[in-house]
Amino acid sequence: METAQLEKLNQAMQVVMQTARAQVLTKMGTKLTVAEKTSRRDLVTNVDHSNEDFLVQRIRQLDPRAHVLAEEGRGDQVTSMAGHVWIVDPIDGTMNFVHQRNHFAIMVGYYVDGQPTLGYIYDVMANKLYAGGPAVGVTLNGQPLAAPVDLDLADGLFGASAPLLIHDRFNMQRVIAASLGARILGSAGVQISQVLAGELVGYLSYLRPWDFAAGRVLAETLGLVVSQVDGTPVNMLSSGAVLVATRRTQRAVLAIVK
Amino acid sequence: METAQLEKLNQAMQVVMQTARAQVLTKMGTKLTVAEKTSRRDLVTNVDHSNEDFLVQRIRQLDPRAHVLAEEGRGDQVTSMAGHVWIVDPIDGTMNFVHQRNHFAIMVGYYVDGQPTLGYIYDVMANKLYAGGPAVGVTLNGQPLAAPVDLDLADGLFGASAPLLIHDRFNMQRVIAASLGARILGSAGVQISQVLAGELVGYLSYLRPWDFAAGRVLAETLGLVVSQVDGTPVNMLSSGAVLVATRRTQRAVLAIVK
Repeated sequence: METAQLEKLNQAMQVVMQTARAQVLTKMGTKLTVAEKTSRRDLVTNVDHSNEDFLVQRIRQLDPRAHVLAEEGRGDQVTSMAGHVWIVDPIDGTMNFVHQRNHFAIMVGYYVDGQPTLGYIYDVMANKLYAGGPAVGVTLNGQPLAAPVDLDLADGLFGASAPLLIHDRFNMQRVIAASLGARILGSAGVQISQVLAGELVGYLSYLRPWDFAAGRVLAETLGLVVSQVDGTPVNMLSSGAVLVATRRTQRAVLAIVK
Repeated sequence: METAQLEKLNQAMQVVMQTARAQVLTKMGTKLTVAEKTSRRDLVTNVDHSNEDFLVQRIRQLDPRAHVLAEEGRGDQVTSMAGHVWIVDPIDGTMNFVHQRNHFAIMVGYYVDGQPTLGYIYDVMANKLYAGGPAVGVTLNGQPLAAPVDLDLADGLFGASAPLLIHDRFNMQRVIAASLGARILGSAGVQISQVLAGELVGYLSYLRPWDFAAGRVLAETLGLVVSQVDGTPVNMLSSGAVLVATRRTQRAVLAIVK
């Protein structure tokens, strides 16, 4: 796709994200309908559903060739990354959304024949929209975002998830001991956006495709690295432990994890 | 002290806190001077020092009878809670301040003959000032703050610190397993303010007096409870594990901790 076309699509998608945020804020003023999916810690609400409907519809309007992989199943059955693949998380951090009314994100990632092309992470309550991709750069609320400094694990705070830390999966406790400290926020979108902003030197968690599709595009555009915990490339159609980090932090973490 | 006098002092202190915040934001635009205190994870900066100087000076102007206990030692040697005792944390979450430029707080607590009287937690980057006390109520940015719902541990997210969670101090891993999940932000001020706002049902961490002096005043005013992990009252002149929680969560946590 031509850069001019991507610029136009990027502008249009930022408007879509802003509209989605406004609708979510409005719906937060009314009573939520909350249901458990696989457990009491895995929730879905009427707002996840309505926002996914909205995003899928707008994506199809902007890109008639879109194949949409969406968390709550309102998209397509996507079994290949060939063509135009959009990956949608209407509310990332639904537990926070329900119980904190804060610290959650709306996320969309766009891949063309498997290549990271555009990504959007909207931290709704902080009103921070990270947007862009390799052809158009990364902006925060429309302003160019500088690449974070390539800090080592020892020189920064590291984003984790509580289950990995408590059960010491992948030697997570040694990773944290080698860093300046752990931070756990309960939203992949919010934590990956903190890596983009240089607030964390890395983030490691068990993630599903919609948890990191947007973040991967933005992170790689900013010179950060995204991989599995054995250092191999991520697969956008499967779930697993994913590391988003500065280059130096990735090296340090890969030497510790097992 | 008369309520009218306290109202006046409360208004004056909110202006002091706003001025402190503005000065901190200005200083963040210049190069920080960072020093280690007891370890690489225990930092102090020129901004901690200058903000503590400012707060101590303003408190002495507003209350000539003030005894000031301040984190960086620019106050008085306070060995008793008799009289007017002010407890100051110029930058709570200095690690976040230095490495994230986000997620830190300015805090002041005021006790009269040991009684919690006024408290201030300013989450600087979120621009949220929690202020007040039992005689004047609690406000968030000047608007009355409703008491959080008395939720049980099982029905909410719980604030922890990484060392307690990793080393399972006080049975912290069982506390988290009984909750909906752990959140770790690295600032007592920010995490206690999330308990005030109902975003967390409780917070347990090893704290020093300036870490919880302000939060105790605000929490107790809102019907929350503050205690040691054995359920006994906190001592404002010593350090230890402190639990800030809803009443129901306190009962649940005290039954688990050991």
